[in-house]
Amino acid sequence: MPSHLALLSCLLVLVLSLDKFLLHYLKRRWLSGGGGSIIPRIPTSPFRPHRPMAAAGKWSETAMLVIDMQKDFVDPAMGSPVLVAGGEAVVPAVAEAVAVARERGIFVVWVVREHDPSGRDVELFRRHLYSGGKGPTVKGLKGAELADGLFIKEGDYKLVKTRFSAFFATHLDSVLKTQGIKNLVIVGVQTPNCIRQTVYDAVELDYEKVMVLIDATAAARPDIHLANIRDMKTIGVETPTLEEWRR
Amino acid sequence: MPSHLALLSCLLVLVLSLDKFLLHYLKRRWLSGGGGSIIPRIPTSPFRPHRPMAAAGKWSETAMLVIDMQKDFVDPAMGSPVLVAGGEAVVPAVAEAVAVARERGIFVVWVVREHDPSGRDVELFRRHLYSGGKGPTVKGLKGAELADGLFIKEGDYKLVKTRFSAFFATHLDSVLKTQGIKNLVIVGVQTPNCIRQTVYDAVELDYEKVMVLIDATAAARPDIHLANIRDMKTIGVETPTLEEWRR
Amino acid sequence: MPSHLALLSCLLVLVLSLDKFLLHYLKRRWLSGGGGSIIPRIPTSPFRPHRPMAAAGKWSETAMLVIDMQKDFVDPAMGSPVLVAGGEAVVPAVAEAVAVARERGIFVVWVVREHDPSGRDVELFRRHLYSGGKGPTVKGLKGAELADGLFIKEGDYKLVKTRFSAFFATHLDSVLKTQGIKNLVIVGVQTPNCIRQTVYDAVELDYEKVMVLIDATAAARPDIHLANIRDMKTIGVETPTLEEWRR
Amino acid sequence: MPSHLALLSCLLVLVLSLDKFLLHYLKRRWLSGGGGSIIPRIPTSPFRPHRPMAAAGKWSETAMLVIDMQKDFVDPAMGSPVLVAGGEAVVPAVAEAVAVARERGIFVVWVVREHDPSGRDVELFRRHLYSGGKGPTVKGLKGAELADGLFIKEGDYKLVKTRFSAFFATHLDSVLKTQGIKNLVIVGVQTPNCIRQTVYDAVELDYEKVMVLIDATAAARPDIHLANIRDMKTIGVETPTLEEWRR
Repeated sequence: MPSHLALLSCLLVLVLSLDKFLLHYLKRRWLSGGGGSIIPRIPTSPFRPHRPMAAAGKWSETAMLVIDMQKDFVDPAMGSPVLVAGGEAVVPAVAEAVAVARERGIFVVWVVREHDPSGRDVELFRRHLYSGGKGPTVKGLKGAELADGLFIKEGDYKLVKTRFSAFFATHLDSVLKTQGIKNLVIVGVQTPNCIRQTVYDAVELDYEKVMVLIDATAAARPDIHLANIRDMKTIGVETPTLEEWRR
Repeated sequence: MPSHLALLSCLLVLVLSLDKFLLHYLKRRWLSGGGGSIIPRIPTSPFRPHRPMAAAGKWSETAMLVIDMQKDFVDPAMGSPVLVAGGEAVVPAVAEAVAVARERGIFVVWVVREHDPSGRDVELFRRHLYSGGKGPTVKGLKGAELADGLFIKEGDYKLVKTRFSAFFATHLDSVLKTQGIKNLVIVGVQTPNCIRQTVYDAVELDYEKVMVLIDATAAARPDIHLANIRDMKTIGVETPTLEEWRR
Repeated sequence: MPSHLALLSCLLVLVLSLDKFLLHYLKRRWLSGGGGSIIPRIPTSPFRPHRPMAAAGKWSETAMLVIDMQKDFVDPAMGSPVLVAGGEAVVPAVAEAVAVARERGIFVVWVVREHDPSGRDVELFRRHLYSGGKGPTVKGLKGAELADGLFIKEGDYKLVKTRFSAFFATHLDSVLKTQGIKNLVIVGVQTPNCIRQTVYDAVELDYEKVMVLIDATAAARPDIHLANIRDMKTIGVETPTLEEWRR
Repeated sequence: MPSHLALLSCLLVLVLSLDKFLLHYLKRRWLSGGGGSIIPRIPTSPFRPHRPMAAAGKWSETAMLVIDMQKDFVDPAMGSPVLVAGGEAVVPAVAEAVAVARERGIFVVWVVREHDPSGRDVELFRRHLYSGGKGPTVKGLKGAELADGLFIKEGDYKLVKTRFSAFFATHLDSVLKTQGIKNLVIVGVQTPNCIRQTVYDAVELDYEKVMVLIDATAAARPDIHLANIRDMKTIGVETPTLEEWRR
């Protein structure tokens, strides 16, 4: 049946080529929140009453990890070689997720990279980006600052890392476990590297519930984002939208 | 919907150009299994002169990590819930890769899971699979054995892990770094979990060259395998075929 | 190529009709994981809370670590260069401590060294002790066995280490924390090295109560033993006698 | 539309059988970056060997670790509960040792504690010392500053720790090993805790030569200092005076 084979081959190609279209379509409707969306819109409400940190019963065993939301990663104006293409679009969702966490009394950890100007504490494959005291997220430079609109508040915690995973060679597990944190909600960039590595390490470290907010995390491309979300789901990670989580 | 039109134009081109190629290719490779492939054949040559382990100059700084090539993961006959669909197919390539490594005097590390019958040292999300002294890769049971055709030889090293990454809570980095190992060649299963976590940890741990043999590793599905290979390439990981590596 | 034309017509119909279906389908299946897919379903591994392990009320949060009670360390008959002078004398106390632990339902972890015959996984300063496939506590040799009178029973756990601390590059913290262990009772040899390093790491890892049974641990000399006990007391470690602990 | 059903059945079969073909095809065009790919090419980040860092010949493989030389630990005027009695007396020797190190081009790492005002990242047994935003070496407070006479210079490295050992849950090993550091010279306070833990971890981590300058380190009492020096010597640590080392 040669015509069947041909037909089927074409179909296969079709499915593969539709992927990108589908992803973009979904992204447009879903992230920009147009009318009639299949996915709930995420409003960013800037004015919220501030509630002080307090181990608020239900949420006292949960921490939010905000990963790498620094200018060099998410602000195109910086022109950094480590810019994550999808990063800027999720800044409002990250800000909103943090606001929800604070309302609930959830412990917020700002995980950031801050590197030595020499690049001596950077991954080998990125080390060529450092010279003349400059490079991505060098400590003290503008690129290492949090993206506009994001702020560390009293009661939050700042944790500096030098590799992908927030748990790699840091005291994050120490500061979380000793407070009785068992559940993690993760936001930030970027999905295949720092998000995923943090998530896998969290699973390896036996956090009971590990959650990635699917629309408050981002990658260079939507298909990369989604392929990684799929993999994380297979190891028991929950991947709700911000709206689903805030309910 | 003009995007449909665009899509169809693309399809037209694709069909016209790919059709013949696909048919031809499938006939030759898939149906009749002949030679002349665009894809290098992986011969499994059973008879090879044995050369004793010796830090063989060029290769003395390289180690091969063989990950999770255990019956429960790659032998469908075990009926294990952790079977990796694509695993069995790569057993010959893994055996061949190990043979090449031994010829070159490369240090071979067999990374395996061996769990307590109680499941107390397993990831939380898999713990329900353990009861009555049974479960995936329980130490001493058949499922924890290496797949048929794979053997640990004198001079090799066996390393037991309990999580995805071969580096998580093991002395692997210790035993490698102290021997001056700087380069890793990784084979086994499965790509999105144990392979990828080992690879990312290796990059985080500053191994200079990290290599995944693309046809001696496998996942549940080819698209999952490839999506993960793609992500690994973006952080500097090399992904040759076994044939390319053995040249 | 008339078959191509037919094919394309089919495709046209297919695309137009499948588009909506695909979108809907992918959304439902891939992101949320529903049923009846053309794409193999990736089941999200159900998260299960870890099962309680024979938790014996008051003692369910306590584990006993038995350190290095192997022939090469405590049996003078072995003539090992790593013999601990005071070791043999505490074998009965260690056996008794283990018996008490078992009566109480305390989780017993036998921490042992098992080294590669090559010595490649030993501390650098001891590596000269390994040659010809022999050396202290080589895996499989008699010197690596537990001292006479000590036995691993079902329900106990054996943990292999390659350095002083039972926590260094092992999954001990993982297996303890995930069971809810908060308190440690430590016995074995020798006080200044493996005992003390394990103790300090336990304090660094936030175990709530760390206890060393002063007469079920030993060093080369009593003054060394006591000087180290004194230091451990200053960081909050409890150091009762076996008799005091068993009351 | 029954034809759709038939079509989909075929597709299912096709997808399952074509997998391997596609995999190889995609790999060739997509990963090796062939022209006209349907999938955007992902450039592989070029691997660059790390650049040498002002490597000063003989001393390029040596680093000096200056441990906890902060006001709360060594300046009696602070009245801190964590004051080390013998600390103030060694400030000049530490300053001198650092000067010698700099002359030789040795990489100097200032290891300091900086704690959260809440005390949530402090050892459990010291946590009661933190309240009202104050406590030993709280980040930003005077007690966390280096002792008078000690300064971090350009080219030095500051490393924050939260436990005794400079290696516990920090990236110190990462930043040292990747520069090719094999030898450590250690100064600071206090001998039984932070000095000794750092030293033992360094031995466990296979630094080739670990040296403690006996008169540029201190404890609460001389006998404690010396008992710990004695123990460290038994595991191969060198313990010269500053004068002996500078020769």
